[in-house]
Amino acid sequence: MRDMFDAKSIAVIGASETKGKIGYDIMRSLVNYYKGEIVPVNIKGGEILGIPACTSISEHGPVDLAVITIPSHLIPATVEECGEIGIKNIVVISAGFKEIDEEGARLENELVELCKKYKIKLVGPNCLGIMNTYNDMNASFSSDIAHKGKISFMSQSGAIMAAILDYADKKNIGFSRIVSLGNKAVINENDCMKDFMEDENTEVITAYLEGIVDGPGFIEASREASRKKPVLVIKSGRTSKGSEAVSSHTGTIAGSDSAYEAAFSQCGIIRVNSLDEMMDYSSALAFSPLPKGNRIVIITNAGGPAIMTTDVAIKNNLEIAELTCETKQKLKDGLPATASVKNPVDVLGDASPERYAFALETVLADPNVDGVIYLVTPQSVTDAEGIAKVAIEHAKSSEKPILCSFFGGTSFEGAEKLLAEHQIPNYLYPKRAVKSLKTLYNYSIIKDQEYPDSPDFDVDKEIVKNIIQEAQEKDMYTLGLESFDILKAYGIPTVGTAITKNLEDTLKAAEEIGYPLVMKIVSPQISHKSDVGGIKLNLNNADDVKAAYEDMMENIPKKEPNATLEGVQLQKMLSGGKEVIIGMVQDPTFGPMMMFGLGGIYVEILKDVKFAIAPVNEEEAREMIAGIKTHELLEGTRGDKAMDTEAIADIILRISQLVTDFPEINEFEINPLMVFEEGALAVDMRLMLKEGGSGPVSELSQSARVKSSE
Amino acid sequence: MRDMFDAKSIAVIGASETKGKIGYDIMRSLVNYYKGEIVPVNIKGGEILGIPACTSISEHGPVDLAVITIPSHLIPATVEECGEIGIKNIVVISAGFKEIDEEGARLENELVELCKKYKIKLVGPNCLGIMNTYNDMNASFSSDIAHKGKISFMSQSGAIMAAILDYADKKNIGFSRIVSLGNKAVINENDCMKDFMEDENTEVITAYLEGIVDGPGFIEASREASRKKPVLVIKSGRTSKGSEAVSSHTGTIAGSDSAYEAAFSQCGIIRVNSLDEMMDYSSALAFSPLPKGNRIVIITNAGGPAIMTTDVAIKNNLEIAELTCETKQKLKDGLPATASVKNPVDVLGDASPERYAFALETVLADPNVDGVIYLVTPQSVTDAEGIAKVAIEHAKSSEKPILCSFFGGTSFEGAEKLLAEHQIPNYLYPKRAVKSLKTLYNYSIIKDQEYPDSPDFDVDKEIVKNIIQEAQEKDMYTLGLESFDILKAYGIPTVGTAITKNLEDTLKAAEEIGYPLVMKIVSPQISHKSDVGGIKLNLNNADDVKAAYEDMMENIPKKEPNATLEGVQLQKMLSGGKEVIIGMVQDPTFGPMMMFGLGGIYVEILKDVKFAIAPVNEEEAREMIAGIKTHELLEGTRGDKAMDTEAIADIILRISQLVTDFPEINEFEINPLMVFEEGALAVDMRLMLKEGGSGPVSELSQSARVKSSE
Repeated sequence: MRDMFDAKSIAVIGASETKGKIGYDIMRSLVNYYKGEIVPVNIKGGEILGIPACTSISEHGPVDLAVITIPSHLIPATVEECGEIGIKNIVVISAGFKEIDEEGARLENELVELCKKYKIKLVGPNCLGIMNTYNDMNASFSSDIAHKGKISFMSQSGAIMAAILDYADKKNIGFSRIVSLGNKAVINENDCMKDFMEDENTEVITAYLEGIVDGPGFIEASREASRKKPVLVIKSGRTSKGSEAVSSHTGTIAGSDSAYEAAFSQCGIIRVNSLDEMMDYSSALAFSPLPKGNRIVIITNAGGPAIMTTDVAIKNNLEIAELTCETKQKLKDGLPATASVKNPVDVLGDASPERYAFALETVLADPNVDGVIYLVTPQSVTDAEGIAKVAIEHAKSSEKPILCSFFGGTSFEGAEKLLAEHQIPNYLYPKRAVKSLKTLYNYSIIKDQEYPDSPDFDVDKEIVKNIIQEAQEKDMYTLGLESFDILKAYGIPTVGTAITKNLEDTLKAAEEIGYPLVMKIVSPQISHKSDVGGIKLNLNNADDVKAAYEDMMENIPKKEPNATLEGVQLQKMLSGGKEVIIGMVQDPTFGPMMMFGLGGIYVEILKDVKFAIAPVNEEEAREMIAGIKTHELLEGTRGDKAMDTEAIADIILRISQLVTDFPEINEFEINPLMVFEEGALAVDMRLMLKEGGSGPVSELSQSARVKSSE
Repeated sequence: MRDMFDAKSIAVIGASETKGKIGYDIMRSLVNYYKGEIVPVNIKGGEILGIPACTSISEHGPVDLAVITIPSHLIPATVEECGEIGIKNIVVISAGFKEIDEEGARLENELVELCKKYKIKLVGPNCLGIMNTYNDMNASFSSDIAHKGKISFMSQSGAIMAAILDYADKKNIGFSRIVSLGNKAVINENDCMKDFMEDENTEVITAYLEGIVDGPGFIEASREASRKKPVLVIKSGRTSKGSEAVSSHTGTIAGSDSAYEAAFSQCGIIRVNSLDEMMDYSSALAFSPLPKGNRIVIITNAGGPAIMTTDVAIKNNLEIAELTCETKQKLKDGLPATASVKNPVDVLGDASPERYAFALETVLADPNVDGVIYLVTPQSVTDAEGIAKVAIEHAKSSEKPILCSFFGGTSFEGAEKLLAEHQIPNYLYPKRAVKSLKTLYNYSIIKDQEYPDSPDFDVDKEIVKNIIQEAQEKDMYTLGLESFDILKAYGIPTVGTAITKNLEDTLKAAEEIGYPLVMKIVSPQISHKSDVGGIKLNLNNADDVKAAYEDMMENIPKKEPNATLEGVQLQKMLSGGKEVIIGMVQDPTFGPMMMFGLGGIYVEILKDVKFAIAPVNEEEAREMIAGIKTHELLEGTRGDKAMDTEAIADIILRISQLVTDFPEINEFEINPLMVFEEGALAVDMRLMLKEGGSGPVSELSQSARVKSSE
């Protein structure tokens, strides 16, 4: 999108001299700031804001960017015209497309086809426009251009973009590039992400999104971008009610939030929940160095606020740095006797700028300190501006972040202004400074994040292909443990099991599987097997198996005379392991999403599961296991032995490969997978294939949705 | 404290003409605003700020309030002098007491004794002073008096009070009374709570506290106050690190946070975590009517912010109101075709004040609507001031709360000012409007909260008294299940159990308890009973019991030749129930704190427990059970039968009575309590008595502490 943002000539198709018309607003926005050529186009010709207008774009010839504001039904013809004369960049401001009705959706499809035909990059339709402050280009109907700055912002909501611009203007926050995404017919968040990543004036990438067009593309773009620059995203429509609003609002179907949560954490996105957080964190990320660790020091001129700050820091997993003895001694020597030289360092209510400077220099030099919260409250003698100047001076040269909280009001107005002018992050409430510092620390980890490929196991795809084809031919879309060969083909250990139809085969199978065994009756009419004596445990030898078989065949018909007995299922009896579940559902945005959890109540009642988008790599597989709240139960607490979590991770990776190889698998679950001190065995499975397009929502996927709306 | 706040004459003891001295600051603060008599006292006499000074307070005689700023070691004599001439209200600004050292603590004790002797109400020492804006009294060293308003504020931190005043000045937020609590030697938060509750100018009570002096008194005062006026409290020092800061700061030992959390929810306190929340909620509570329910409607001129607002509302358990058909039809008829008449009601980007007024009136008339979020974003045609006037006009007459979010910056400055002038709550970010509305709803419930007494069971205190006395005489401080008589005396069902020393008694006890039984060897030397065959399950008749007894007596000595076999323990074997735990620890602030949780991993790993301060009433007991995350497990999900939670509640209430009756019980636990479909039985217990002063911290109490630091 570089050509679009660096445009040397811009046509406004639908330019107008009439105030209140969008074609007027766009012209005014451009004329006020833009130094390049402006070409108004209006079928009536004449002069617009002092510039002679063409009656058609063909009359003028190619420009670097065309901004279109004419009614929607006229736009396809105009885009065709632009394409024919070689215009490659278009912003369609006009509404009246997908967001309105089916006819609008048809028009929008036409635009998409034309853009493909002519290789046109098109922003919108139904958007506010774009800005590049470093080119003085305000191609939007926001009357003022943003201040120059280091943040770039894309927004799927025009109103949120307008609100942010208005707020930023008041607070003197600067931007580099701004894009109102609109309906995202052609240019979407992934294109903007790449553009912002490459823009040398952008240091922080921010986005307000309601949905994502291309999930896998988003993950790829974000992984690349987030290693170069922090990427902050507000993803709205988290809750089911919110999602309803999304679909009625922009026609985008929002994916379930679990998938967003998983995807964002897998690709280095810093998810923020509100616009105030986004502004807070952006200013820290734009102007502060990253900390090398999470050990912070609080400098304060009062105890109470320091306690609150300490509380918030600990809650946010920051460490209150243990100052070295040298530092403490130096502080002791240089500060008044009643000052606190432990962290928080309390320089007392009567602290002068010099005393703040001494404390700041001393703690900055401490190797145990990674970052500073510089806290100031208004006391009767406080020289706020002097103390602000100390922060400014040191922040410019320090390799450690210094975030300020000048916590007051009227008497801090001068200091606040000074800090803003020098681009020193300052927060009214200490809590917000702490959370911003935490975000700096989080980003320092994301920046170094590696994304290795998933392992490529040697598997037998053919077997699975055949099983699936055979099922599809029979119109069978749900496969159970009779299809264990799928697991075996992907190297996943399964419990010994067999379904047999007569005593002879049963005895043979028993010898093959080995004892002890469980036998269960197989009959479509019998659902509560144990009620009719249809489950026999602890079969330790052939005699036990024979007795159990004969007992079932003799006595069950007496209790259930109408049941067809198709045979029995034998399964190795397991003991000493723990039940876990590995599952997968197709997410509409991101594709196969895997799930891990402990079996039984842990999934059903505690909803203690972890999601990840497939394909997952080894680290992600381990994180799925370590990420559940009850992971301690696998780690050998309370005298228990530790379970073989590496075996679980291996199976997660193999299933990840399976569901990636076969996108026709709509849902998949191994439940339970029994894990032991050594190894793990799949005991049952359930695999659902896509029926035609999208099948009905299954239980697993419903529970994922419930989770996401919490 | 009414006399103190309504003082008609104030002496400043230590008044000074020298700038920079506190005695000067206080004089200046008073002279600037106060209309009553001001009496400067300075041993040198002379004139201070134009008022002739006395050389001692006795020279002048009694005043309604004396503010003391002289050095701490001189203060006891001065307080004695005040007492002798009949002064009843004193504020000690000076520091140099408990917060400094032992000598300071001694001085502070002297003050306390003098105040008792002369019935003096004393604020401080070590504080900023007090204000009453309705009496124009600024007896503090904050130079400006606060604006008049409806909020009263007490603060244990002078710096936080100063910061809030400075911030409130900038934002035009008004107060009624303000107290800097300082060391709380005499007047503490409970006195202020009562005073604020009675002050007719106070509508919202707010507090910043680091510790509480008298926990039970606080609960009593808060229950009374919170039914009359909302009480918002920031309790700092939540985390263990934070608490460390507390103890080094004011010498107050902060109680564990679990106890605060429990106590606050039991007495109607609205706990807030930060000062921004406190300011947000206070302005809603001070100026808005309370909603009758939690069904809100969002009026907006843009989709994106409405989605974010919906998300936050659902996350905060507010309901997005389902508008009636009539309302929707009326909106449809009166709004443009593309407007959304479902909630959120989108009046579109070009909405005029008239259109906002129409939408607002229509939804306010809907019986399904309890409150309104009035959301405005800056669009090119937005008449922000006009739209603000609509909100002002309707908010004045509406019985339903209308909270505004004018979400923008520069272009909303006029509207913001208008809203502030008319005391209409307005929040930059919609999230904060939603959370404030939620707080209004929460308070509507607290306001009607009843606090019935705990039931008074007919119990046998004598038995317990004797058991405890006997134990104390033997220097035994830990009692186990051999003291089940304590439970029996309080009507708590226990599992049948007996400890016997020979076969004959064992057989007799077995018949008494009934079968099936478990037998365990009793021997101080054997800790792993099952390893030596010292546990026998499933004893179904006298023969089984005899065989088990003889087997133990014969074979255990072979394996453990050095063990003394003292006998065996018989216990009824239970099946089909669920294990729960009921415990109690003494909290240093609030006294006996009870705990409920499910047994095993639920307590140990999930830390899924609920606390409540004893004595608890029936509703609180039920809430302890319903309040754990895994309470579903007791309610008969997954095909299980529901457990008898009423039986658990009954036992919680009986233990509450036990630990209230016997404060010498330091810790107590029934673990497990087996609960069944009908009834519950204590299977084991552990009771620890106080040893002299404070005993060592037990496991249970440690785990409670771990919990609180999370």
